[in-house]
Amino acid sequence: MIHLYYWPTPNGWKVSIALEELGLPYTLKAVNIGRGEQFTPEFTRLSPNQRMPAIVDQAPADGGAPLSLFESGAILIYLAEKSGRLLPADLRGRHAVLPWLMWQMGGLGPMLGQHGHFRLYAAEKIPYAIERYERETRRLYDVLDAQLAQGEYVAGDYSIADIAIFPWIITHKAQGLTLDDWPHVKRWFAQVRERPAVQRGTALGKEMRKSAMDDEARRHLFGAAGTVAQETRQ
Amino acid sequence: MIHLYYWPTPNGWKVSIALEELGLPYTLKAVNIGRGEQFTPEFTRLSPNQRMPAIVDQAPADGGAPLSLFESGAILIYLAEKSGRLLPADLRGRHAVLPWLMWQMGGLGPMLGQHGHFRLYAAEKIPYAIERYERETRRLYDVLDAQLAQGEYVAGDYSIADIAIFPWIITHKAQGLTLDDWPHVKRWFAQVRERPAVQRGTALGKEMRKSAMDDEARRHLFGAAGTVAQETRQ
Repeated sequence: MIHLYYWPTPNGWKVSIALEELGLPYTLKAVNIGRGEQFTPEFTRLSPNQRMPAIVDQAPADGGAPLSLFESGAILIYLAEKSGRLLPADLRGRHAVLPWLMWQMGGLGPMLGQHGHFRLYAAEKIPYAIERYERETRRLYDVLDAQLAQGEYVAGDYSIADIAIFPWIITHKAQGLTLDDWPHVKRWFAQVRERPAVQRGTALGKEMRKSAMDDEARRHLFGAAGTVAQETRQ
Repeated sequence: MIHLYYWPTPNGWKVSIALEELGLPYTLKAVNIGRGEQFTPEFTRLSPNQRMPAIVDQAPADGGAPLSLFESGAILIYLAEKSGRLLPADLRGRHAVLPWLMWQMGGLGPMLGQHGHFRLYAAEKIPYAIERYERETRRLYDVLDAQLAQGEYVAGDYSIADIAIFPWIITHKAQGLTLDDWPHVKRWFAQVRERPAVQRGTALGKEMRKSAMDDEARRHLFGAAGTVAQETRQ
């Protein structure tokens, strides 16, 4: 059994989708990031960066004590290796996937996060910042589109690279984008969205997510004295 | 022999340090990002995201054709696995390192990159953005300091997690920070800096780096029509 510390956001969905794809039994542990539950001492012990998602594998492969992990990208590698699926074992297959997983972790996620912040959440509308991150967001979509022009999935067969990237593409409307501008992304997005495990993963805890951003959530997510900018990583 | 596509910046140093630590023979292929060399068709074939570093391993372990990789975090995993060093083989050791590697890729690198942009490079001084990223930078240092209070290195023995994080801490003065605020980071930084391989890695191509940011570099790095925000990933 895996304990999944989760809130329904793109980084949370990566792990819920992977668990569903792999058919690994898990228990949902909600971490309400709009109520600051990521800052408790208990959660900080699992996730020193005070961000969800995190997991605790109650039955790790070495038969030892429960094993906790943080950072969605690291969790995806762990789950894929635990299951022997979604990340090829051969040298070339494996090292085709990992660069795209890193590209999502280091580029697509953080930069779309910044675009979302300045476009949607920042109290001040700052054209320089909105344009900066919109330009970078569009550039990243261009890169993804060029890659998906060459194959059905991001890197060989369907893998943790697709699972990492897909949840961020879900946000395209909120980012003010239409997938019509990137036909290969559009084709891929529709195809991945059809997968039953993807639908179950993105539906997990949907009822917990309130569309309204209230003052308390703003304080926990965007930082005030003593708190942090959680939404930079969603 | 490994071909290293490189420019002396934090993300480039990660790979030059790893190559030096592992004693792997390599040939330097300079990618002058201030002159737009990351945008050539030849380089784009190796690194579809048009960022350095990238490598081409001329002698991969499977004995097949040369193998190219992009994204510094993926290259670090590849080199560690090729050598059987700097990333433990056992389940717990390995999955202690990977979350911190991902934390650097997804948090420390991108957020310090944004702080550097708004603090140093942006033509407009935008207090909201400078304060946003300074707050997040300090938070990330707090997280690292708490981790380094618990052990000599970031995750068990010296590993690719230290190698990923160290080059970004080199930038602390440019970020307006003093390590005196984070005593464990300060201790660790001094210790890692003493390593001969780290000194060789960070010295690689030092003479290529001009301190001046001229107009052409600004155009290639910060984006204008047709170009992109390279410096977001340095």
